[in-house]
Amino acid sequence: MAQLRIALAQVNPTVGDLDGNAGLIVEWAARAAAAGAHLAAFPEMMLTGYPVEDLALRGSFVEASRHALERVAARLADEGLGDLPVVTGHLDRPPVGLVRAGQPSGLPLNAAAWLHRGEVLVRSAKHHLPNYGVFDEYRVFVRGDRLPVVRVHGVDVATAICEDLWQDGGPVGVAGEAGAGLLLVLNASPYERDKDDVRLDLCAARAREAGCALAYVNMVGGQDELVFDGDSIIVGADGSLLARAPQFVEHLLVADLALPAAGPTAEPGRTPVDAHDGTTITLDRIVLSPRPVPAYPVAPQTVAAPLDDLAEIYAALVLGTRDYVRKNGFRSVILGLSGGIDSALVATIASDALGPENVHAVLLPSRYSSEGSVTDAEDLVKRQGINARIVPIADMVDAFEDELDLHGLAAENLQARIRANVWMGLSNEHGHLVLTGGNKSELATGYSTLYGDSAGGFAPIKDVFKSTVWDLARWRDAQAGVDLPFLHPFAQEPIPQAIIDKEPSAELRPGQRDIDSLPDYAVLDPLLADYVERDLGRDALVAAGHDPALADRVIRLVDLAEYKRRQYPPGPKITPKNFGRDRRLPITNRWQEH
Amino acid sequence: MAQLRIALAQVNPTVGDLDGNAGLIVEWAARAAAAGAHLAAFPEMMLTGYPVEDLALRGSFVEASRHALERVAARLADEGLGDLPVVTGHLDRPPVGLVRAGQPSGLPLNAAAWLHRGEVLVRSAKHHLPNYGVFDEYRVFVRGDRLPVVRVHGVDVATAICEDLWQDGGPVGVAGEAGAGLLLVLNASPYERDKDDVRLDLCAARAREAGCALAYVNMVGGQDELVFDGDSIIVGADGSLLARAPQFVEHLLVADLALPAAGPTAEPGRTPVDAHDGTTITLDRIVLSPRPVPAYPVAPQTVAAPLDDLAEIYAALVLGTRDYVRKNGFRSVILGLSGGIDSALVATIASDALGPENVHAVLLPSRYSSEGSVTDAEDLVKRQGINARIVPIADMVDAFEDELDLHGLAAENLQARIRANVWMGLSNEHGHLVLTGGNKSELATGYSTLYGDSAGGFAPIKDVFKSTVWDLARWRDAQAGVDLPFLHPFAQEPIPQAIIDKEPSAELRPGQRDIDSLPDYAVLDPLLADYVERDLGRDALVAAGHDPALADRVIRLVDLAEYKRRQYPPGPKITPKNFGRDRRLPITNRWQEH
Repeated sequence: MAQLRIALAQVNPTVGDLDGNAGLIVEWAARAAAAGAHLAAFPEMMLTGYPVEDLALRGSFVEASRHALERVAARLADEGLGDLPVVTGHLDRPPVGLVRAGQPSGLPLNAAAWLHRGEVLVRSAKHHLPNYGVFDEYRVFVRGDRLPVVRVHGVDVATAICEDLWQDGGPVGVAGEAGAGLLLVLNASPYERDKDDVRLDLCAARAREAGCALAYVNMVGGQDELVFDGDSIIVGADGSLLARAPQFVEHLLVADLALPAAGPTAEPGRTPVDAHDGTTITLDRIVLSPRPVPAYPVAPQTVAAPLDDLAEIYAALVLGTRDYVRKNGFRSVILGLSGGIDSALVATIASDALGPENVHAVLLPSRYSSEGSVTDAEDLVKRQGINARIVPIADMVDAFEDELDLHGLAAENLQARIRANVWMGLSNEHGHLVLTGGNKSELATGYSTLYGDSAGGFAPIKDVFKSTVWDLARWRDAQAGVDLPFLHPFAQEPIPQAIIDKEPSAELRPGQRDIDSLPDYAVLDPLLADYVERDLGRDALVAAGHDPALADRVIRLVDLAEYKRRQYPPGPKITPKNFGRDRRLPITNRWQEH
Repeated sequence: MAQLRIALAQVNPTVGDLDGNAGLIVEWAARAAAAGAHLAAFPEMMLTGYPVEDLALRGSFVEASRHALERVAARLADEGLGDLPVVTGHLDRPPVGLVRAGQPSGLPLNAAAWLHRGEVLVRSAKHHLPNYGVFDEYRVFVRGDRLPVVRVHGVDVATAICEDLWQDGGPVGVAGEAGAGLLLVLNASPYERDKDDVRLDLCAARAREAGCALAYVNMVGGQDELVFDGDSIIVGADGSLLARAPQFVEHLLVADLALPAAGPTAEPGRTPVDAHDGTTITLDRIVLSPRPVPAYPVAPQTVAAPLDDLAEIYAALVLGTRDYVRKNGFRSVILGLSGGIDSALVATIASDALGPENVHAVLLPSRYSSEGSVTDAEDLVKRQGINARIVPIADMVDAFEDELDLHGLAAENLQARIRANVWMGLSNEHGHLVLTGGNKSELATGYSTLYGDSAGGFAPIKDVFKSTVWDLARWRDAQAGVDLPFLHPFAQEPIPQAIIDKEPSAELRPGQRDIDSLPDYAVLDPLLADYVERDLGRDALVAAGHDPALADRVIRLVDLAEYKRRQYPPGPKITPKNFGRDRRLPITNRWQEH
């Protein structure tokens, strides 16, 4: 056996910020070297951030990534880190490529590179491209067909990327056939509920399949619609868990592994191997340092326990909100505080993410607001120490109603849009990002006003059902006095109990209650989960135990809401777009075109 | 040689409206039969509409499409049309399929079927899937691998689908090797500027390659972001143009073709053939009617001339607007009429699309509006006979400013958002769809207010540069008295010359002019076309002759606008979406879940 100390850098890059991300590589490689690591690894697409979406199709961005890779290799050497092999994800292209109709322009590659002594030692690219759910990689990448196996201190280390682990055939099997001692997998794997269990099981199964240890380094941080949770993992060849990084924080996971020393039989060079998925993979063997290091004492390993379900969701919301605000160049947020549970939870998440001093609330009472709404909101403001002002909207409503004769929903929507006009004005004047408070139950059923309560830059709880909103509020109040890295240390419960207990209402007409328009959330939310998330059809919903009449009602609500949402889409809206190409770039684009 | 009268049904289906689309198939098959056709063909995905996007991933929708296909086959026979072979596009799935990670759920197929005597005779599916520009077919379809060759009155007719024609290898070559006498291609090919020339050249080249005549039937109509222009084409084996349908209208293109009679050698049955693209295609030979029809006199052929460039764009905007409004269940539209060129052109397009009686304008003067703005807008209202009302916004602005102290852009945005609140209120009260007037030059450079002038359901000229807006206005005025099917017969010029001549201004502060914030449109627009549509980088822009300082300025404007647009995205906004799947369905979803 040979000893190897590896360092997995679970870090937080920003899409498009090539210089900033390169700086992270140098900074964390230095930490790995200081920890005595023999090998340092960074996540998938570390240098560009992930997902880059259609930026991958801009030739000048691909070239910028390639140059940045060479510069970071040189810089590592300049800073005395050249002897540490560093593996990092980046955006690349083949040196020459056969252009075919239907292939992504420029043949971009979701690539990985080994950097050593100022040079790019070897490049490879993701073989299996995910193209479902939040992934659209067939659109922007072409398949890689090379598996590097690099001998580091006598251990053969193979590298693969993310989806290569999730699909049968390809790099995992080839790494096994090549007799690799360690399979290093670079990932940008977004958080989903309960995914940590799935991920560990997958790593264990693939380690056993390849017959070698497996090191899984994941990205951490919020990027637009995604939150990467970290949860980097190392398992042995038998699938046993050896080390695990904490979730939702940057972390250098250092582990001492005892790995089989490579035999003398395999020669350096390139060999084509059947990948057992209908393709051929070129095995690229390189010897960096043939002999194992002398035996040394093993350091203690980190094995972080995963967070429980509510803590995990809350941590994801805090990180997603913080990174959305910061990566988009804001420092503070503004939101309407109604006295209801949704805006109360959003304000609390914002306080945890940015500090209460960077949270600005506007209380916007109308003639229909209950007295309790204002006093409950004021109680929350006092408990958390956030900034607040009251802007009554009655006179603005009157000015519109003097000119327009609006009734029913049109009159309700008017009030919601006047409120949005107030917070957008304050946002434009003072530079705060607007947070909106809509939850998933409301949005799925269309219980919200376009350009009204739904107006803003980021909706922290858009993907959280109302039942879970209450669960999270109770969970957060129960953490008062508990020390968790993603929570602000409030001395008392940040959310007043009265806000948690009150019956939900939009307060847009006298005596209005959610229950007048929607089924009870306790029966609505499970049905929404089955219909919206699990895609069950009507018959399958009934077979799953949902009331047929309720299923019909909710299906109508959701389909109508989807229909309406798409009648009135985004900022730059639906229109014939085929007069010329439109841009389809990721939201955070710090890269300046050259 | 054998004679064959074919009928290409260039019709306008609606995404999700299975019953309505099936009705179109029966109606137009009856017309084809009445015209004496021996074979009738419908566009790609006729039965479901196109594009279906993630609806294809809902198993219950795929089953609904399969049942609808069988029902329409039976209905054709019931209505006495069973003897006419009908080829139509639909959504299908394989009878059995090997499920692999990364493949679209349920293995959906972009399929084509031959219907005959109440039965589905043979099914096939698109082989080459487009996954670029407006297409994301790798996400929702799996590849088809079958080529039907059906003998109709002694002629072997092969069927392929859309992208199969645009890429090398696959169905075209196999059809040629199979000795087909006619290659029938079903399409949903969206309009782009100058695409008609490309399309004819492509049909001619592929006909020569396959060594047989080629019939290209295309969809017509607006569907969300796309406009299908029809332009169905028939070419001979030598590539010569035989028949062509007019653009932007439904049309039955009937043509008598003299085609080689099939030899007796090829036996019915299935044969695997090398597709010369790394795959194998199963040739599926079927004999429907072995002998040629007796000789009959040939009918005159339609060869429509393509529209010129401005007429083509204008027709696309009218059709896109009309179908967006109607397919989304609206009959009337409302828009803010400022007295400027953009809203004037949008009002005119709406009058042409829906009739002036269904167009509602709101004039929203503020303290900064020039007198000319109101009188020019009123002149347009009178010329076109549209509905109009004046809603002064000064008092509403005052009511906000009493509570808020806003300056500069924040104060300008406030006015734009108050206007939007007025038209959204009137839309909610009276049920009109809101049209917005933003053009591509403004939107690309960020010269617009979120939730203000950009608020609404459809932006007819979003993809039209400002220079082209003026060109279209002048073109439209020049058509007064001209009889064109997509224009309302206005007796005089619908757009006042004063609106075309005036200097552009947002009128949100005293003396404001576009030129204070943006380069002159005559130099801006060509630069935007090269940067936004052609994806040229900075160096390539300069090499193309653009002024370097101007290129830098415009790149900054566009990147910042893109960045801001993504900070503040859609109705239901950016948020961690990975707590569960979100729906990603097409906008027009008439199909009710079962």
